[in-house]
Amino acid sequence: MYQDISLEQAWQLLQEHGPALRHEVVSTADALGRTLLKTLYAGHDLPPEPQSAVDGYALAENHHTDHSSYQLAIGGLPEALEKGQAVPVNTGGVLPRGTVAVIPHEKVIGEGQHLRLLSNIKMGDNIKGAGEDFARNDILLSAGTQIDPAALGLLAALGISEVEVFQRPRVAIMCLADNVVPSGIEPRSGQMRDSNSPMLSGFISQQGGIVTTVHYAYNNETSMKNVLETLCSQNELVLLVGGTYQGGENASRLLMEDVGAQILFWGVPIQPGSHTGAGKLGNTLLLSLSGNPAACAVNYHLYAAPVIRGLQGLPRHYRQVIARCSNGLPKRTGSRRFVRGKATWQDSGWEVEVLPGQKPSMLRSWLGCNALIDLPPGSGPIEAGEEVQVMLLHEYADFTRVYGRSIHG
Amino acid sequence: MYQDISLEQAWQLLQEHGPALRHEVVSTADALGRTLLKTLYAGHDLPPEPQSAVDGYALAENHHTDHSSYQLAIGGLPEALEKGQAVPVNTGGVLPRGTVAVIPHEKVIGEGQHLRLLSNIKMGDNIKGAGEDFARNDILLSAGTQIDPAALGLLAALGISEVEVFQRPRVAIMCLADNVVPSGIEPRSGQMRDSNSPMLSGFISQQGGIVTTVHYAYNNETSMKNVLETLCSQNELVLLVGGTYQGGENASRLLMEDVGAQILFWGVPIQPGSHTGAGKLGNTLLLSLSGNPAACAVNYHLYAAPVIRGLQGLPRHYRQVIARCSNGLPKRTGSRRFVRGKATWQDSGWEVEVLPGQKPSMLRSWLGCNALIDLPPGSGPIEAGEEVQVMLLHEYADFTRVYGRSIHG
Repeated sequence: MYQDISLEQAWQLLQEHGPALRHEVVSTADALGRTLLKTLYAGHDLPPEPQSAVDGYALAENHHTDHSSYQLAIGGLPEALEKGQAVPVNTGGVLPRGTVAVIPHEKVIGEGQHLRLLSNIKMGDNIKGAGEDFARNDILLSAGTQIDPAALGLLAALGISEVEVFQRPRVAIMCLADNVVPSGIEPRSGQMRDSNSPMLSGFISQQGGIVTTVHYAYNNETSMKNVLETLCSQNELVLLVGGTYQGGENASRLLMEDVGAQILFWGVPIQPGSHTGAGKLGNTLLLSLSGNPAACAVNYHLYAAPVIRGLQGLPRHYRQVIARCSNGLPKRTGSRRFVRGKATWQDSGWEVEVLPGQKPSMLRSWLGCNALIDLPPGSGPIEAGEEVQVMLLHEYADFTRVYGRSIHG
Repeated sequence: MYQDISLEQAWQLLQEHGPALRHEVVSTADALGRTLLKTLYAGHDLPPEPQSAVDGYALAENHHTDHSSYQLAIGGLPEALEKGQAVPVNTGGVLPRGTVAVIPHEKVIGEGQHLRLLSNIKMGDNIKGAGEDFARNDILLSAGTQIDPAALGLLAALGISEVEVFQRPRVAIMCLADNVVPSGIEPRSGQMRDSNSPMLSGFISQQGGIVTTVHYAYNNETSMKNVLETLCSQNELVLLVGGTYQGGENASRLLMEDVGAQILFWGVPIQPGSHTGAGKLGNTLLLSLSGNPAACAVNYHLYAAPVIRGLQGLPRHYRQVIARCSNGLPKRTGSRRFVRGKATWQDSGWEVEVLPGQKPSMLRSWLGCNALIDLPPGSGPIEAGEEVQVMLLHEYADFTRVYGRSIHG
C-alpha cells in the first residue's frame, strides 16, 4: 500500500491493477462507440467487381472517325459492348465487358440512337476498379479502433453484421454520507440533495460506462459491507463517494478493509480532493472519491475516467497542452492544484479561462468546464497571460505528454 | 430557386428555411446532451443554509488563554455553541449558532473532553455560506445550454427533476438507387450493399438526431411520392440519398417537385458531391445527398449536420482553423474541394494529414477522418508543410470564422 503518492504513481497502480477486460459480440447496429477486440480484414474486394462510379454511359472503344459519337446499345445492358457502342449505367452498376470508361449524363447529349460526348474522356474514367477501396484480406479496422459512423458504413459495405467488442464497464456508485438524500426526497435541515450521482452518471455514460446501481447510506438498514460485497461481484468499478473523514475515521477506507479489499494507495496530495484512495477486490477496482461536488468531479476525471476508458481498450488519459491563462488566478497554491477552466483554441494558440467558484464544495466552477488547469505545488498567483499546463477533458492520449512548450522543468 | 450557388449561400438558405423548433419536457434523467429552451433560475440559495465544508469540528469563539484548546459539547449537536466549545460536524451538516469556523478532523487531537487544534484557523474557515454557490434567483443555466454532466449535478442540487428542452430532430433516410440493397440481403451482380444509411445513422445519432425510417427504392412497390409525403409529415428532415442522375434526370429533384416541395437551391459547385440540392415541404426540409459513400458523408457534414444541430438550438457550423498539411496532395483542384483529413494539435499548432483513398466512391478516406480540408477552386497541388483551411468535425461555432492566420485573401 502506498501513502501520499503522486498522481502519476496512482495512475500507474490503477493501470497495473486494472480489472480484466471483458468482451462480447454485438450487432453492428449497436456498435457505435464500441472498441474492436480484434483486427477485421476484408472478406472480399470492395467493390467486388468493376463498377460505374457515376450515373451515365458505359463507353466501348471507339474507332469511328468522330470519336465523340457513340451508338446506343439496344435492349438493356448487354454482356459485352461492341466497338463504338455506349449503354446507360447507374452508379455502382456492373459494366459490360469491353467498357473502357464511363461518362456522366451531364456530359453527353442524346441524339436519337446516338450519343455525343460534350467533353473528353480518358481510359478508365469513372470506373471503380475491383478492390480499389479495399482489396480482399486488407485490414478494414484495427484492433482497438473505436467504431465511428464511417466504420459502420465500411462494415455494412462488407456485409459484416456483428463485431466482437470490449464490454462497457459496469460501474456502481455508493454514497457513504448519511446526510445525503437521493432525488425525490425533500432534504431536512442538515441534509443535502445528492448532486454527485447524477453528475457522475453523466460522465460515466459519456465515457462509455454503464451505471448499474446507486446505493445510499442514507436511511439504510442493510450492512454496508454486504452491499459493497454484492456490488463488487457485479461491477468492474465501484465508486465510494463521500464519507472520507466520517467521525475522524476514513469510512471509505474502513469499508474497503472490511470487505477484504487490497488497498492500492491512499492519499494523493492534490487540491481539491486529497483524501482519496483505491482498493481491489477480486476483479473489481474500488475508488474513494470526495463527497464535495467539485472535488468529486476532479477525482472522477483523475482516477475513474482512466479506469473506465482503459476497460474499453481506449487511451486512458486526457490530452495535455500548454495554454495562455486569459484571466489569471490570485491565490497561491499549496499542494498541486487542479483548477476548473474553459479552454478554447484562439488565433494565438490555446487559451484557458479560470472559471468562477473554485471552492471544492461549489458546482459553479464545473459549468462550461472542459479543462483542468494543472498547477504545480507552490505555484501562483497566476497572472493574466501566463502559460499554464492544461488537461483537455474531451481529448485523449495514450500517454501523458504535454503538447506545446513545457512550462515545467 | 437558386442554381449553382456557393456553400455559404446554401447555408444561409437552409437556416432561413429551417423547420420550426419543437420542444418538450423531459426528466433530468433523460436530459444529458439536450438543449435548454429557457433560462433556469435558482429557486433557493445553494447551499440553503450555512454548512460545514468538511468533516470535522464546529468551533465557537474562544476567549480561553490557550486559543488552541476547546471543550467538546456533550449530547449531540446543540442549537448553539457556547464560547470555547466545539462539536463534531459532517460535510454539508448544519452548524450550531455561534459557530465561527470549522476545522477538519485531521487538524485536531482529541484529549478526553478537550480538543487541541494542530493548526491555525481563521474566522469563516470551512464554512459554506448560504447561497455562496448560487443565490436564490441567480441564473443556473442559460437558454441554449447543452446539458452536460455538471449541469445534471446542479439541477439535482436544486431539486429540479424535469426540464424543457428542444426535441431531438426526426430524420428519415430514403435510398433512391434501386441497385442498393439493405443489410441482410445478399447483393447480386450489379447491386451494392447500402453503406450510406448505417454511416448516416451514426452521424445523425452522434449529433442528437433520431433516425425514424430508412426507406429503400430497391424492390419497392409503393409509390415513392406517397412514401415521401408520409415521411415529410413525420420528420423535420428527409435525406434523399443517391439517384441524383438516374436515367439522365435528377430523380431526387423530380421526386421533390412531385410532392410539391419548394426547391430552395440546386447544385453547389464543390467536389465531391456537387449534384445536391434542398427543398421544403410544410415544416420539413428535404436534402439530396450523393449516393457515392465518401461524397454522401461530405454532403451530410456540409448540409445535414447544420440543420440537425440548428433544430436543437445548437451552434450550426464546424469550427474552422488553419492547419499545416503534413503530407500534401499532388492533385490540382478544379472546383472548391473538401478533402478528408485527420487533424491533430501538435507542438507547433494544428496539423492535418490528407487521408488515403480520396475518390468520391471510396470509404477509406473516412476512416479516422475528423476534419475536412477546404481547398478553394483552382488551388493545389498542396505541398507538404503548406497551410490549409480545415473544418474540425468535432467542434462547433456559431459563425464560420477561421481561426489562425487566414490563407484566403
